[in-house]
Amino acid sequence: MFTHLDDKGKAHMVDIGEKIDTVREAKAQAFIRLSEKTLNMIKDQSIPKGDIFSTSRVAGILAAKRTWELIPLTHPIPINQINIDFEIKDNGILIFSQVKTNFKTGVEMEALVAVNLAALTIYDMIKAVERGAIIEDVKLLYKSGGKSGTYEYT
Amino acid sequence: MFTHLDDKGKAHMVDIGEKIDTVREAKAQAFIRLSEKTLNMIKDQSIPKGDIFSTSRVAGILAAKRTWELIPLTHPIPINQINIDFEIKDNGILIFSQVKTNFKTGVEMEALVAVNLAALTIYDMIKAVERGAIIEDVKLLYKSGGKSGTYEYT
Amino acid sequence: MFTHLDDKGKAHMVDIGEKIDTVREAKAQAFIRLSEKTLNMIKDQSIPKGDIFSTSRVAGILAAKRTWELIPLTHPIPINQINIDFEIKDNGILIFSQVKTNFKTGVEMEALVAVNLAALTIYDMIKAVERGAIIEDVKLLYKSGGKSGTYEYT
Amino acid sequence: MFTHLDDKGKAHMVDIGEKIDTVREAKAQAFIRLSEKTLNMIKDQSIPKGDIFSTSRVAGILAAKRTWELIPLTHPIPINQINIDFEIKDNGILIFSQVKTNFKTGVEMEALVAVNLAALTIYDMIKAVERGAIIEDVKLLYKSGGKSGTYEYT
Amino acid sequence: MFTHLDDKGKAHMVDIGEKIDTVREAKAQAFIRLSEKTLNMIKDQSIPKGDIFSTSRVAGILAAKRTWELIPLTHPIPINQINIDFEIKDNGILIFSQVKTNFKTGVEMEALVAVNLAALTIYDMIKAVERGAIIEDVKLLYKSGGKSGTYEYT
Amino acid sequence: MFTHLDDKGKAHMVDIGEKIDTVREAKAQAFIRLSEKTLNMIKDQSIPKGDIFSTSRVAGILAAKRTWELIPLTHPIPINQINIDFEIKDNGILIFSQVKTNFKTGVEMEALVAVNLAALTIYDMIKAVERGAIIEDVKLLYKSGGKSGTYEYT
Repeated sequence: MFTHLDDKGKAHMVDIGEKIDTVREAKAQAFIRLSEKTLNMIKDQSIPKGDIFSTSRVAGILAAKRTWELIPLTHPIPINQINIDFEIKDNGILIFSQVKTNFKTGVEMEALVAVNLAALTIYDMIKAVERGAIIEDVKLLYKSGGKSGTYEYT
Repeated sequence: MFTHLDDKGKAHMVDIGEKIDTVREAKAQAFIRLSEKTLNMIKDQSIPKGDIFSTSRVAGILAAKRTWELIPLTHPIPINQINIDFEIKDNGILIFSQVKTNFKTGVEMEALVAVNLAALTIYDMIKAVERGAIIEDVKLLYKSGGKSGTYEYT
Repeated sequence: MFTHLDDKGKAHMVDIGEKIDTVREAKAQAFIRLSEKTLNMIKDQSIPKGDIFSTSRVAGILAAKRTWELIPLTHPIPINQINIDFEIKDNGILIFSQVKTNFKTGVEMEALVAVNLAALTIYDMIKAVERGAIIEDVKLLYKSGGKSGTYEYT
Repeated sequence: MFTHLDDKGKAHMVDIGEKIDTVREAKAQAFIRLSEKTLNMIKDQSIPKGDIFSTSRVAGILAAKRTWELIPLTHPIPINQINIDFEIKDNGILIFSQVKTNFKTGVEMEALVAVNLAALTIYDMIKAVERGAIIEDVKLLYKSGGKSGTYEYT
Repeated sequence: MFTHLDDKGKAHMVDIGEKIDTVREAKAQAFIRLSEKTLNMIKDQSIPKGDIFSTSRVAGILAAKRTWELIPLTHPIPINQINIDFEIKDNGILIFSQVKTNFKTGVEMEALVAVNLAALTIYDMIKAVERGAIIEDVKLLYKSGGKSGTYEYT
Repeated sequence: MFTHLDDKGKAHMVDIGEKIDTVREAKAQAFIRLSEKTLNMIKDQSIPKGDIFSTSRVAGILAAKRTWELIPLTHPIPINQINIDFEIKDNGILIFSQVKTNFKTGVEMEALVAVNLAALTIYDMIKAVERGAIIEDVKLLYKSGGKSGTYEYT
């Protein structure tokens, strides 16, 4: 009956039924480029909207859990752990995420959603001060587990 | 009673009650850097997960409408219009969004959420082919309306 | 920059910025065809999962409010009222919805989402008893307000 | 303490703790009856809101994953696969869904939510052209797995 | 790279990867204190917004399933069962919940979210009659399963 | 056709179409009773899950915006402002919220959802230390605007 099931171009959620549960981990990063003035305000905790680190950390964690609602072809995944961390650099803030599961498919998208939404939350909180901030270098740093094994960005 | 209401560092949704409804528009972009091989597969519509443009366009539109659920300190906004568009470049895909409202506060975050989630959806659909793709140059291109007037990225 | 903005086939949320707020109303219906045995269990309140009317009414109301999250190109709408009602027929249950707003665009989709999700909730609650129940005759009965004026199904 | 726990008519999520994980699959369909004029516009890709197939496919997939949020007494389910397909008929469009899991309870509701939301998305995209379109013949076609075994609509 | 991973005060989702799946159950309660007049209207089913028990029961069940979306550091959990029950007392309504899973972490938060949202829904439905109703004595009554074993409120 | 529209006991969203937009404000509180040991850990920032104030503040703000998704008969409201604040007492933490809108109906439920979810988030973060914490004295403190005017808890 599904005569067109494998049509070219047709979006579909791939079947993960044959895959097996393994421990899987993914790490990602995003960078938000900021002016010295904005960075100084962040260090002083004088950004009017409040503390950017705790707010964007919670935003990133919550969004990572909702990855399957946001990215159409992803699978709902029982996440074991999410960590988000920040490093203040000379020209911006580097955001890291780490996500773990024990499931049939990996958490790369969850790790990427976490850093993206954390970066967007920072942008929202500093945009009254610096509208031209740029998010860049958003990438998967590492993933392990599953048939394809370990990957590290080089 | 709210003795600590304006404490330094305390996250809060700012009061937009004094602002007035005006036509407001925002445009944003994101770029996803891809290998020639991946771009050729996209042009051939041979990405196994399906058509990346229609899928990521819908993902971007849906996510933009949920901006206020994802970015903690944003306000729910009655959005009038959302457009997402793509340009295939030599080294990747440029994603544009355009969002309009007639409200007390702007749609910059909605435009940025739209391009980010569209970019992440593309990443999800091509990651089996190219895990090292990078999202970059995510920025607000333009906004108009409101007290602060028109802004253009230069 | 938006060189491809009006491309044929490209999904987009249409701009409602030029439309004006008017009182708008929509009514829709769905019918779920059921066996006599199932209908008798419903009348006896002996469906094991509980009362189907109150549960599916709440499900329909909640889903109608989330229409813009579910149907990609719809606009978020400030809904003024939602009513859902049922009529037990000889061969099934007829579900009605009525939704009102005072906004730039109508609530037809909200009314249709309300009856569909109410019907699906009934199906879920009776499926242990009758797996072959059919939802049919889902249609817009009436809409008023806006430039296109009043419509009535005939 | 739970003196009223099994009261007649009380809605509750049934306990699936004693059930075992098995491969489970469900297929469902919905039909949207359309005029020849609308069908011709769909074939020409001249529906103003954009391509109805890719948009409603994504809508159906996303909604199926959120079934447990929409249908009150359903359980959250780790879905392995979702496919949605279309057949253009003389008098409308037939929509099929296929959903798989490996869990304690089946994915019948997920399959039905997928076709319903796909049908509603088509309605939304063509309603400016044909307001009187009807959704009908929404039913479970097939389910396998679990204690009750295989079911096929006849 | 995660140099600040264990910083004091940093919110994070704890790793449940080492925990094992066991049957886990939690029971919670909330009490909403109401005037005699309001209680009589509830008994008469004359609250204008409709039946408070079926509506708040559905609200509590749905919210419990979304606990991981609402409470930032909780894990998504495959819930096996949710029950909500009510006892009409002389001075208000006592709400009970019971939630079960077979997973790596417990359902205490799900049980507490269930009774809280049920209580808030009752408040919403009676607030036109009695704005000063108070929710109190919200607590975990019981939990079993997992390494920490059984807990009972005393 | 809606023959049963005003049936006794039938849940429905009341029509706010005749109401007018006015500035409306609501304040609510919740108290979470904690042991001295837990309070000392909070003051020391030694709660293992991280800073409870910033996490529960973000949780409360996000939940308040989703009130209409959680409480079945509430209307979606364009919120102008949300503030959440805390006072450390000898025997627990007092949580305050303040919500404002300019709309046809008030934000009492939003203010109550904010404090409840903030309280539940605190419970989640301290429950490894003190499982028997109790949430109590959840009430509306103040509301202004609309036909019924100003209310203050006394």
